[in-house]
Amino acid sequence: MGKLFDVILLILIVVSVIFVMLESVKGFSENTYKWLYYGEWIITIFFSLEYIARIITVKKPSTYIFSFYGIIDLLSTIPLYLSFIFVGSNALLAVRALRLLRVFRILKITRYIGEANKLSKALKDSRAKILVFLFFVLISSIIAGTIMYLIEGEESGFVSIPVSVYWCIVTLTTVGFGDIAPVTPQGQFIAAIIMILGYGIIAVPTGIVSAEYAKKMNGKPNQDDPDYVHVNT
Amino acid sequence: MGKLFDVILLILIVVSVIFVMLESVKGFSENTYKWLYYGEWIITIFFSLEYIARIITVKKPSTYIFSFYGIIDLLSTIPLYLSFIFVGSNALLAVRALRLLRVFRILKITRYIGEANKLSKALKDSRAKILVFLFFVLISSIIAGTIMYLIEGEESGFVSIPVSVYWCIVTLTTVGFGDIAPVTPQGQFIAAIIMILGYGIIAVPTGIVSAEYAKKMNGKPNQDDPDYVHVNT
Amino acid sequence: MGKLFDVILLILIVVSVIFVMLESVKGFSENTYKWLYYGEWIITIFFSLEYIARIITVKKPSTYIFSFYGIIDLLSTIPLYLSFIFVGSNALLAVRALRLLRVFRILKITRYIGEANKLSKALKDSRAKILVFLFFVLISSIIAGTIMYLIEGEESGFVSIPVSVYWCIVTLTTVGFGDIAPVTPQGQFIAAIIMILGYGIIAVPTGIVSAEYAKKMNGKPNQDDPDYVHVNT
Amino acid sequence: MGKLFDVILLILIVVSVIFVMLESVKGFSENTYKWLYYGEWIITIFFSLEYIARIITVKKPSTYIFSFYGIIDLLSTIPLYLSFIFVGSNALLAVRALRLLRVFRILKITRYIGEANKLSKALKDSRAKILVFLFFVLISSIIAGTIMYLIEGEESGFVSIPVSVYWCIVTLTTVGFGDIAPVTPQGQFIAAIIMILGYGIIAVPTGIVSAEYAKKMNGKPNQDDPDYVHVNT
Repeated sequence: MGKLFDVILLILIVVSVIFVMLESVKGFSENTYKWLYYGEWIITIFFSLEYIARIITVKKPSTYIFSFYGIIDLLSTIPLYLSFIFVGSNALLAVRALRLLRVFRILKITRYIGEANKLSKALKDSRAKILVFLFFVLISSIIAGTIMYLIEGEESGFVSIPVSVYWCIVTLTTVGFGDIAPVTPQGQFIAAIIMILGYGIIAVPTGIVSAEYAKKMNGKPNQDDPDYVHVNT
Repeated sequence: MGKLFDVILLILIVVSVIFVMLESVKGFSENTYKWLYYGEWIITIFFSLEYIARIITVKKPSTYIFSFYGIIDLLSTIPLYLSFIFVGSNALLAVRALRLLRVFRILKITRYIGEANKLSKALKDSRAKILVFLFFVLISSIIAGTIMYLIEGEESGFVSIPVSVYWCIVTLTTVGFGDIAPVTPQGQFIAAIIMILGYGIIAVPTGIVSAEYAKKMNGKPNQDDPDYVHVNT
Repeated sequence: MGKLFDVILLILIVVSVIFVMLESVKGFSENTYKWLYYGEWIITIFFSLEYIARIITVKKPSTYIFSFYGIIDLLSTIPLYLSFIFVGSNALLAVRALRLLRVFRILKITRYIGEANKLSKALKDSRAKILVFLFFVLISSIIAGTIMYLIEGEESGFVSIPVSVYWCIVTLTTVGFGDIAPVTPQGQFIAAIIMILGYGIIAVPTGIVSAEYAKKMNGKPNQDDPDYVHVNT
Repeated sequence: MGKLFDVILLILIVVSVIFVMLESVKGFSENTYKWLYYGEWIITIFFSLEYIARIITVKKPSTYIFSFYGIIDLLSTIPLYLSFIFVGSNALLAVRALRLLRVFRILKITRYIGEANKLSKALKDSRAKILVFLFFVLISSIIAGTIMYLIEGEESGFVSIPVSVYWCIVTLTTVGFGDIAPVTPQGQFIAAIIMILGYGIIAVPTGIVSAEYAKKMNGKPNQDDPDYVHVNT
């Protein structure tokens, strides 16, 4: 019974998020949007009932309501009701933002993945080190961004230091959109140095997590797989 | 004898896939397409004979026919015959898709690489963890995509939530095509955060596989190289 | 008292760097630039006082003045005074460069992160190996860049060997701006080989740091976390 | 004496390669090209003398001449002499290619880095596994490329299967030029799957090298640093 409820809930979460995403797509027929609207109401009512049921059944409702999942469960229901109230009002962007809050429903799904696994433990343990590392990336981006702003200037798209720093982050993380790219020889030379250094330092966070995870794994080899994907409803 | 047959088969697979690929290229002379067509028939007949030979020689033909390689072997021959039947019909796209199925012939080649190696074992063992991780990437992309859709809007190319989520996946995987890129300062700020976080979490799957593989390698150091690349015909 | 001073200094550093960055942004009101200018003076005076205080309080002022942090502290104050002197002069670019030197203030922040941690030790220990590796990347880029220059030529944007080498570095580091991209079949074929090889060798520096770090971590497991993020004022 | 000779040779190699690269840049004054030409002759004569000296001093000249460095040393001198012979001839592209062969001089520099180090040993030991892995990347690219060609078609730039496969390699290696990008919803959906899978499998070669290198390092911990960067003249 509880299992069936979980499966229905999982399907509804996925369907609901797909609905929110499809709603934003232009070009469907009028009928499609109508069906999405009806479906949205059915799912919201189901999530509302789930929310009420959880409040009734848990020992301390206040603990649940202000917990991570309590807030997520509320966010899964309230936006549609509120958007119903504000309909016709002028605060269009606010209503739109409100409605899109429903996408956080996807976080309900994390209930079924489990948090007490070694993966997140390894990530938590190396959190401080990764933060220090990302901090260095940010500092490097600010200095390199200022240099690029000075060298390339506004003609090449480096219109201000914040934009140059944004370009440096895009480059150091090896994303490289190409919306902004150096055009002067000096700029390309500095960019090449930034990229080669970035290529070298990408190894650092990987090495850290790898070593931390290996340490974790060697510590308790028997409990590894069993407690990994466990359901806590 | 069996060895010679294998070498011929390997060459034919490679030649055949190159033929399928070249067939799609515009701008060759009429003669070239004719030769590709003749070559295609010779290869298909060879593969047909191979398929029949395998059915005859194996102990349980039904097991082979419905096995992975049985289906691949059938897919290597049947499209050309079927396209011969449907020629002149209107279902052009279907015929085209059918003909391109021949590209799956490349999978015949995996027979000669061997599956029982430590590489795929390490990948299989960490499969569950990588899946959980990729799942988190997907959830992050959906939430970040919705935020980018709200901030950047349709003017910047973020025309719908699915497209925004697609952009987030392109960015988080550090591919960064640049066909869609944030143009507003707020959008670039959020994008920078997404990239830096993505840069930090790229370490996670690498660390997992690395640790799993190291564990595997330490376990049976003697059997490592010998059973790695073995032929199972 | 010392703690409060540190917190104020940290906030001032961050605020100051944000000010330098905002100053370069076009489109704010006149008033905003005026406030940025006043704020700049307040921060500069504070940093000047800090610099003088440090010279007075340290045992050997000459050691401090020519140390890394001594130079950074001086660079945090002097540019504004100098730009005040040169104002009205014609050396516009020089003044601009001078003013932007203030961005190096961000390096003051590294005082609070600590250097004697395992992360930078692991990086230092594998420095020689990473350098050798990056050197090979550079050599590969020069050779591959020359080949691409010969094959693609100037029509595709590969206007000279330095630009081709720049493109190779952009590609090998998987940044891929797309401002220059091969268009001929031969060029795309060579580019595909460069990318696949680059994909394979990205593993090398990661593996090195990972192994070095794991070795370091296993060596002194007890001192790991405590001495990681320590403050040395 | 030998040391001084090595330093001069190292400088000449670097200068010479910079000269070859600068020669291809348009826009310098006539005088600059003249100086580059003179410098080129001086360097070539020096390398010629070095080549002759090596042949005279080594025990078995024939072994040296047909060794890797023997061929590189010859390639460092002969192109200029040959281009002198063919000057005025029509085989322009051939002469151009010939002259650019001089860029292989950069490989002379590898003499001073040393090959018998653990880094290249780790790479050699995991060579077979990385090859198998890259082979799978190629197979995936061929299949995914064919699917993208069928879905996106020629309107989106996926003009033929080879071009689609090229796009897949660009995407799987996370380079992402953006010269070709999917525009249809189905194409973007398949592309997202390709990228997420690519993101997951990038871990595999890294993990392999990392584990191999760690194994190597643990094996002989004492000989690690001394024999790493050694000069073999």
